[in-house]
Amino acid sequence: MNNKLKVTFLGGVGEIGKNMTALEYNDEIIIVDAGLTFPDDDLPGVDIVIPDMTYLIENKNKIKALLLTHGHEDHIGAVPFLLQQLNVTIYGTRLTLALVENKMKEHPKIKYKAVSVKPKNVLKIGSFSIEFIKVSHSIAGSLALAITTPVGTVVHTGDFKIDYEPIDNVMTDISRLGEIGRKGVTLLLCESTNVCRKGYSMSEKSVGRTLEEIIKNHAENRIIVATFASNIHRMQQIMDIAERYKRKIAFTGRSMINVSEVAMKIGELHYNKDNIIDIEKVDKLDDKEVLIMTTGSQGEPMSALTRMAAGEFKSVKIRPNDLVILSASPIPGNEKNVYNVINALYKLGADVIYDELAEVHTSGHACQEELKLMHSLVKPKFFIPIHGEYRHLKTHKELAMTLGMDSRNILLTSIGMQVEIGQNSMKEVGFVKAGQRLVDGMGIGDMDSNVLRERKQLAEDGICVVCVNINNVAGEVTNEPFIITRGVVYADEQESFVQDAKASIIASLKETDLRGVEPAVIRASLRRNISNFIFRRTKRRPMILTIVSLD
Amino acid sequence: MNNKLKVTFLGGVGEIGKNMTALEYNDEIIIVDAGLTFPDDDLPGVDIVIPDMTYLIENKNKIKALLLTHGHEDHIGAVPFLLQQLNVTIYGTRLTLALVENKMKEHPKIKYKAVSVKPKNVLKIGSFSIEFIKVSHSIAGSLALAITTPVGTVVHTGDFKIDYEPIDNVMTDISRLGEIGRKGVTLLLCESTNVCRKGYSMSEKSVGRTLEEIIKNHAENRIIVATFASNIHRMQQIMDIAERYKRKIAFTGRSMINVSEVAMKIGELHYNKDNIIDIEKVDKLDDKEVLIMTTGSQGEPMSALTRMAAGEFKSVKIRPNDLVILSASPIPGNEKNVYNVINALYKLGADVIYDELAEVHTSGHACQEELKLMHSLVKPKFFIPIHGEYRHLKTHKELAMTLGMDSRNILLTSIGMQVEIGQNSMKEVGFVKAGQRLVDGMGIGDMDSNVLRERKQLAEDGICVVCVNINNVAGEVTNEPFIITRGVVYADEQESFVQDAKASIIASLKETDLRGVEPAVIRASLRRNISNFIFRRTKRRPMILTIVSLD
Repeated sequence: MNNKLKVTFLGGVGEIGKNMTALEYNDEIIIVDAGLTFPDDDLPGVDIVIPDMTYLIENKNKIKALLLTHGHEDHIGAVPFLLQQLNVTIYGTRLTLALVENKMKEHPKIKYKAVSVKPKNVLKIGSFSIEFIKVSHSIAGSLALAITTPVGTVVHTGDFKIDYEPIDNVMTDISRLGEIGRKGVTLLLCESTNVCRKGYSMSEKSVGRTLEEIIKNHAENRIIVATFASNIHRMQQIMDIAERYKRKIAFTGRSMINVSEVAMKIGELHYNKDNIIDIEKVDKLDDKEVLIMTTGSQGEPMSALTRMAAGEFKSVKIRPNDLVILSASPIPGNEKNVYNVINALYKLGADVIYDELAEVHTSGHACQEELKLMHSLVKPKFFIPIHGEYRHLKTHKELAMTLGMDSRNILLTSIGMQVEIGQNSMKEVGFVKAGQRLVDGMGIGDMDSNVLRERKQLAEDGICVVCVNINNVAGEVTNEPFIITRGVVYADEQESFVQDAKASIIASLKETDLRGVEPAVIRASLRRNISNFIFRRTKRRPMILTIVSLD
Repeated sequence: MNNKLKVTFLGGVGEIGKNMTALEYNDEIIIVDAGLTFPDDDLPGVDIVIPDMTYLIENKNKIKALLLTHGHEDHIGAVPFLLQQLNVTIYGTRLTLALVENKMKEHPKIKYKAVSVKPKNVLKIGSFSIEFIKVSHSIAGSLALAITTPVGTVVHTGDFKIDYEPIDNVMTDISRLGEIGRKGVTLLLCESTNVCRKGYSMSEKSVGRTLEEIIKNHAENRIIVATFASNIHRMQQIMDIAERYKRKIAFTGRSMINVSEVAMKIGELHYNKDNIIDIEKVDKLDDKEVLIMTTGSQGEPMSALTRMAAGEFKSVKIRPNDLVILSASPIPGNEKNVYNVINALYKLGADVIYDELAEVHTSGHACQEELKLMHSLVKPKFFIPIHGEYRHLKTHKELAMTLGMDSRNILLTSIGMQVEIGQNSMKEVGFVKAGQRLVDGMGIGDMDSNVLRERKQLAEDGICVVCVNINNVAGEVTNEPFIITRGVVYADEQESFVQDAKASIIASLKETDLRGVEPAVIRASLRRNISNFIFRRTKRRPMILTIVSLD
């Protein structure tokens, strides 16, 4: 027992995407968040990326709770994988838990316990006392955590912004944060997503005002709004505007329908039942009486909006009287898909308004001035920036220093790092096994896996399979060598390519004394031969597989 | 002979990237630009993308000239491929031609004729009279074209911005453009890249002032600046600042060295010989006496800056006293690579300043107010927006309409479209074969090629090869079935996977009467069997290749 608090960073530092932190005091661990990230094109065929949970599994018996700050995928997406491995009670707001529940429907065999909490609730778990604090973010039901431990209080901001005119009329609880700060905070863990952006983030209501202006000015058009399904407050504003301008609302897209239903059920989304219609019925109304809320604001290939843009969505056919509003910014990496959808909608004659043309979206993350406010309220002894790439953590450190913090009291961490916190001390104590795990079909693999290397090589240069049967007693080839390529030769060159490749193989085999020779030797020589043949022909080095059977 | 001007769009409309337009009057064709684009991750293994030139090759005998507006790859990159197919004289400024010459060094067998031109020069080619007009852009030696034809004057803006304080003291020639406009312009072809951006682009000199401020404030640091090698004016400013602050300049990165040498030779880049040192000698100077200019501002994997960030660049080892300035914005699609480099530099202890933190870059393309100025000077009868995605062309059309143009006088085109221009008419007359050609190793292929489909499938799900020998007289399998997978199974599952797959194949073959059976039938049944086996096991559908030999 060393009377220190150990903080282990299993995600969310030095990487964007998944978030996961473990707080450990003696033989008690509480986990904050369990997120996933979506792979980019560097990880072909990979479905999702989750944190390596080895450390938690090894310390299974210590784990007392999983606290979820909010319901975004990068905070809850790995929950099913965590629950597969260990049994832990989950705490979060009703919306967060409803979204977890939705997710767990795909894993009906896993039983788990979830306890819903509200802002101002205090939860005692062993040596920890956790107070939940309301914060504004781009999803309703978001929380910061003030975790009191024997070494003092740790404030974990979750994801937040300071919005002075929040849609649900309950602001980020800056007065409580100030009070906690005044009593003394040992460690601040603060998100860093927008630390490079000067000033303040726009309020959610100002987006609503822009949307209302646009909808008012397009009184005769049918209106289609694409936004994030999880942004309940955006949804609420759009529904309220629709009602003011006498438009019925139809939801489409799986996650939009799911999340809106969940949010209505738990009272996060207020609605007038008479004002909601089935998407199949929109064609019975005049264009000016309709507002369609859809998924697809990121140009996701199978989403409703993408299919509308491709003319493949049955219930909504895009026409020149449509105004499509993309109330979102492209998440980095999605730009091309988003712009393809916009181009396609324009080509169908619709008008399109998106973030480059009007302020139809705002970020849910604090910009520099908001971060300064958080630091100034919490006034921590020690500070560890979280939730950002290394450049964000670094810039966040500099921001804290401009507010007077001593650089020795700020630590830049990376995945797997363990930090020990005392009442008056913070130090790195080592690294645990941590990193990214790739979920791919039914398999879960490592980052540096051969599977990925192979897929990348296959993607770049294709594959060539050569199959030869040999009688190594008579010393002769007993079949016509068999050659298949995939991803190597363009169609019009295929026939002559295969012919010449065969000739090259036969010639090389003729030069070899095949009597008594081992298949491995022939395979190596075949591989060399065909690889050189293809390189001369195409300047490519595809993967070569050689199969030599002995008769 | 129909006394109309035919304009054929072979690139640069509806897509960003490569640019190519043909102007045709009776039996004379002049081509404006021949650009390439770099493939994104949708085109695995593809080196570059060039326009389909079928139309030009079919009309080989009509072609009189290739006019190059400036030396960026998306305007000159396809020149070698054009010259491979047809013999045409190239016209451009000295810098543009020097960059073409550089490129042609890799194609020593191709002979070609190039004629250098200057702003205000007038070139007569058959029915065409071409006046070259100075414009500002992010590369020196940029031109707009005023092409007088029997149906009137066509103004082609090339890529441009309006910079009131250009580095070479020669502004975009707005007075000449006004004069040409006053005399009457039939058609304006105007670039659209930044049409969604409000206001004006920042001047190049204001970037210089920011850079100077930063360099002044880092008097004790070694300074490394990464920028586009082709941005001669940026380079000039940085060299001037270095000299003012008593720093020697070292160039590194192949294109930086090449372009700076070319630009110095032709007098586009002014320099003091004593102030330039070899990169190998920087370690002999104090940090405060050094400024290194490098490539890699886009995080290109093999570039000098990326290798420095990885600790793999021999002559420059990054240390905590380094300040790295990325004087560039990430080109869409390059963000991740750029941020990876920034993160790595920070981790090595260097300080990094990039476009999110300071105004160290400006675009070379006109924003809305500059485009309005161009339209108001040229006052064309007809307008076709070029150089942009469809959304840009559409927004550019709307911009022209706010200036009073009749929508019937504006045409949105797409690749391959032919438009006929008369003195008082503009109409679409059809489409020619056009589109993208993929240059891939030695091959040039089509967009919808099977090679790409195969590579994508291979990348997503990998491949499984099954090889079985059968004696269909005795009706038995004569070898142990051979199974190879690549990109399918993670290492620790490989062995049991292959074992179980073999068992599954053997079991299925046992159930089949193999006497007299055709290999094709066995192959089909094997494929089904193994595909289902793998799907049950991995939820993946890799490419399956089956090889059945008869003994």
